Amino acid sequence: MASPEERAGPEIAVAVVGAKTPGNIGTIARAMKNYGLSELLLVDPPALDPDGEAYGFAGQAREDILPNADEISFEDLTENYYTVGCTATTNEDPANHMRYPAKTPRELADSLEGIDSTVAIVFGRERVGLTNEELERIDTICSIPASAEYPSLNLGQAATIVLYELRDLALSESQHPEDLHRRAPQPEIERLHDQFAAYLDAIDHPENKQPKARRLFRRLLGRADPTPREVRTMQGLLRTGTERSESWHPDRE
Amino acid sequence: MASPEERAGPEIAVAVVGAKTPGNIGTIARAMKNYGLSELLLVDPPALDPDGEAYGFAGQAREDILPNADEISFEDLTENYYTVGCTATTNEDPANHMRYPAKTPRELADSLEGIDSTVAIVFGRERVGLTNEELERIDTICSIPASAEYPSLNLGQAATIVLYELRDLALSESQHPEDLHRRAPQPEIERLHDQFAAYLDAIDHPENKQPKARRLFRRLLGRADPTPREVRTMQGLLRTGTERSESWHPDRE
Repeated sequence: MASPEERAGPEIAVAVVGAKTPGNIGTIARAMKNYGLSELLLVDPPALDPDGEAYGFAGQAREDILPNADEISFEDLTENYYTVGCTATTNEDPANHMRYPAKTPRELADSLEGIDSTVAIVFGRERVGLTNEELERIDTICSIPASAEYPSLNLGQAATIVLYELRDLALSESQHPEDLHRRAPQPEIERLHDQFAAYLDAIDHPENKQPKARRLFRRLLGRADPTPREVRTMQGLLRTGTERSESWHPDRE
Repeated sequence: MASPEERAGPEIAVAVVGAKTPGNIGTIARAMKNYGLSELLLVDPPALDPDGEAYGFAGQAREDILPNADEISFEDLTENYYTVGCTATTNEDPANHMRYPAKTPRELADSLEGIDSTVAIVFGRERVGLTNEELERIDTICSIPASAEYPSLNLGQAATIVLYELRDLALSESQHPEDLHRRAPQPEIERLHDQFAAYLDAIDHPENKQPKARRLFRRLLGRADPTPREVRTMQGLLRTGTERSESWHPDRE
């Protein structure tokens, strides 16, 4: 991925409106740090005691994001940021534009890509979320898909999912190595298949059954996408078995 | 989406190994309920007091998932389930197969689709996760991408992200209406453009500047994917302005 200097795209802040539970604000701060965001805006927040749950739940975000959070009015928020309001409930009735149309978090990430603006992802209160009066002032609606029977996510969990989906906009790099899974080059895999064929010969697997066994092994490896190390190790193990089987004599038993 | 009876695919359980914090188990139970899962397996769990944090954090999962959670040994877990171990840390060295290769949660969801098996998504302890001894017994590794500087997610937040990504395997339907955003049919949008052209005429916008203004409006609407209601409302509002402008006379001012 590109370094932070090279990335074009929005500056993303997170705003929490009227939350009552300090622990949720700590959870959100931690998710922000996990996903490369730093600007936390609080509208009408509860008191955040340095020895309390907000700091207890914030992980390393207790060092920077929480102490640097800014208290802001809802008016200043909508005046200065392109606001995205997160809500569990969407309108069924497409004639009602309070919560319609909405984007999923993944669609939101796509839509923000390449937009050079100051965006605030806005989360509402526990249980009731954002009020209709607040939603009227908000530019775009985002709704996290969840169970029709129980779509209401906990505030901190909802924020975690949205920030996870926005990761490519904010993170210059993840903790993952370049390849989470490297498939061995095909010629190396073919050498393993050759070794397997030699092994079948050496263990005197019936000749008319060898093609079927080779096919089975090809399908198995074909689905497993073996790594270079897996291919080399399996080849070595089969080679030893091949050699030992070739020098085996029934009368030495 | 298909109804639960029609879905083919894995039965997905969630296993939590050696967690110390009841609140995290409650958070995981809630995410399970939000994403259509019900089987919670606990290896070496803390006591779950019905008046404590586990039940406090579980939302509606306090009614069923938490009280029905099964305590199980790690051996019984690996013996009976296709186990997927979740870890923040992956191996940089592709010759070390303890935490390599790994799938992202999204890749995991793809790989499980259509597999008719009993799968357990396994989460480890707070801070240290799953031990190497445990990982050796586990079939597949899943790692959530996060910030290279701070990739360590809170246990409950990590589970929330993984279960969110697995949603299509477990949920028969989400709370969202069929269309989260319906674009108006193109002929309706074209009628709005006709109305806009008539409006430009009526307000005596200079004739040589009209094509440019029409293009601007077409680009704006083209990016906004207007809904049928948006198109109809804007058309009506412009029609009224057109009519009033047409009957305007400077000498009546």
